[in-house]
Amino acid sequence: MNTEWTADAGADAIGRVLVVGAGTMGRQIALQCALYGLDVDLYDTAPDALAAAHNEINILAASFARHGRLSPAEATAAAARVAPTSDLPAAAARADLVSESVPEDPALKGRVFAQLNELCPPHTVFTTNSSTLLPSMFAAATGRPARFAALHFHLPPWDANVVDIMAHSDTAPAVVELLVAFARRIGQIPIVTQRESSGYVFNAMLSALNGAALKLAAEGIADVTDIDRAWMGIMKTPIGPFGIMDMIGLETIWTITDFWANALGDRGLRANADFVRGYLDRGRHGRKNGHGFYDYPHPAFAADDFLEG
Amino acid sequence: MNTEWTADAGADAIGRVLVVGAGTMGRQIALQCALYGLDVDLYDTAPDALAAAHNEINILAASFARHGRLSPAEATAAAARVAPTSDLPAAAARADLVSESVPEDPALKGRVFAQLNELCPPHTVFTTNSSTLLPSMFAAATGRPARFAALHFHLPPWDANVVDIMAHSDTAPAVVELLVAFARRIGQIPIVTQRESSGYVFNAMLSALNGAALKLAAEGIADVTDIDRAWMGIMKTPIGPFGIMDMIGLETIWTITDFWANALGDRGLRANADFVRGYLDRGRHGRKNGHGFYDYPHPAFAADDFLEG
Repeated sequence: MNTEWTADAGADAIGRVLVVGAGTMGRQIALQCALYGLDVDLYDTAPDALAAAHNEINILAASFARHGRLSPAEATAAAARVAPTSDLPAAAARADLVSESVPEDPALKGRVFAQLNELCPPHTVFTTNSSTLLPSMFAAATGRPARFAALHFHLPPWDANVVDIMAHSDTAPAVVELLVAFARRIGQIPIVTQRESSGYVFNAMLSALNGAALKLAAEGIADVTDIDRAWMGIMKTPIGPFGIMDMIGLETIWTITDFWANALGDRGLRANADFVRGYLDRGRHGRKNGHGFYDYPHPAFAADDFLEG
Repeated sequence: MNTEWTADAGADAIGRVLVVGAGTMGRQIALQCALYGLDVDLYDTAPDALAAAHNEINILAASFARHGRLSPAEATAAAARVAPTSDLPAAAARADLVSESVPEDPALKGRVFAQLNELCPPHTVFTTNSSTLLPSMFAAATGRPARFAALHFHLPPWDANVVDIMAHSDTAPAVVELLVAFARRIGQIPIVTQRESSGYVFNAMLSALNGAALKLAAEGIADVTDIDRAWMGIMKTPIGPFGIMDMIGLETIWTITDFWANALGDRGLRANADFVRGYLDRGRHGRKNGHGFYDYPHPAFAADDFLEG
């Protein structure tokens, strides 16, 4: 499907999505769209990344079937709706919406969108999934600023089903409306920011929580498990801030904390960054390598008696 | 019960608790101890506060019965175990443990404990429920520093069942152990801090989360409901930071934010304080007066379709 799209046509007119960048986020966004019936082209310049993405999408879909979230037939059909491709011109020509998840470099993102602007039909809406940059940083480079905004996912989108929709000053209001409708169509709760802000909405709050948890540990006020225990015991959540940071990955936590420690000259943030660095130096990178603040696949916080201490 | 207590005897030797200060926290701590079978004297200098506390304890116990948390007989028995009293010498003479919740003034707390030190048997353990002060600020004034530490509750203790146990440098290790066992005995998860720190553990994290949420609203990045929606949608909690701040009360939030805005000369905190001040100036004090960031008793965030926006 690639109908002649107008702002009035709404999200129903989006039949085919092009996800650019097949890393952790790109592949999950592609699958989320496919789970809700959309056809998706998943493009990456690296053949290895494409193959790994294809494999992971099949594994994820199978796990949804195994856990009863989907029937086996639905899972197979969803995974089959994602087409990994290295043919950008063909994929761009049939895209109604682009979701970009390439590395966090505004110049690179600008070049990618400029190329897409040449290849995509005029109606195609461009979105960036950037976690840290502002859409205004490369809106002009897209060649179609009025049809461009941030559409920012959280991981994994089938559970953390909130998207930030962040326009820049030249985004057309109808495009924001379309993105709100599109977000709902793919099972997401849309949060429209009233102005640009790095960190969006949820991430700004999560960063503050994680920073406070790190400070308590770095300053030796309480240990990692007690800090998570205090949060989980009161908030009744199945995971605390250190468990969440293990999910995000300690390299990412360190990179962001180190950046802001330097940018602000903040000694507290420096102590937080050094605390995380100590884990990385011991080969503890988080859930992805099995060792972070906790040891996986059976972290202490997931034990039935964790809250009892 | 008022056995000859030694450190070895452990928490089982605590039969009678004296709660000093019958405000919101004192009355809830008294009821929490009574729910777990302890006899409690609840003391206050103000007869009105004592009468209001007695009334609220009966209402709370009845609501536990109505919601099936306790049988009617258990609820009646629990409420009856709390004895409101204005006779401090008699209550002190039979206390195995004191929990103090008088106003946050270290000189006042010191005077209260000095008086209790004259009235209580030598074995009585002294604890402060102070939310903002450090035990070392008035440990000497208690006259029994080795038997004194902070035992800090969260509200309401039957749901937010985590206590911080914060020793000062002269608290006896056996007293910390006793408080850990006592906390467990009254259904609390004990978090022992490794050193003194104002803000304890959970409160330090919640303050950071609330501050980030206020910043998003004060800076006009997103509105109150969208900020809570983003948090609740991802964390799968039934309440978000603004709903929590309504529970705490906007005067309290403003007082703390205003204090730190002045102490640190921080413009962001000043904007946060002013944002809360705007609600107070419109008569919105939080859940307690029915109007805060939300309107009660049916706040928008509690509606079934809140996350859909």
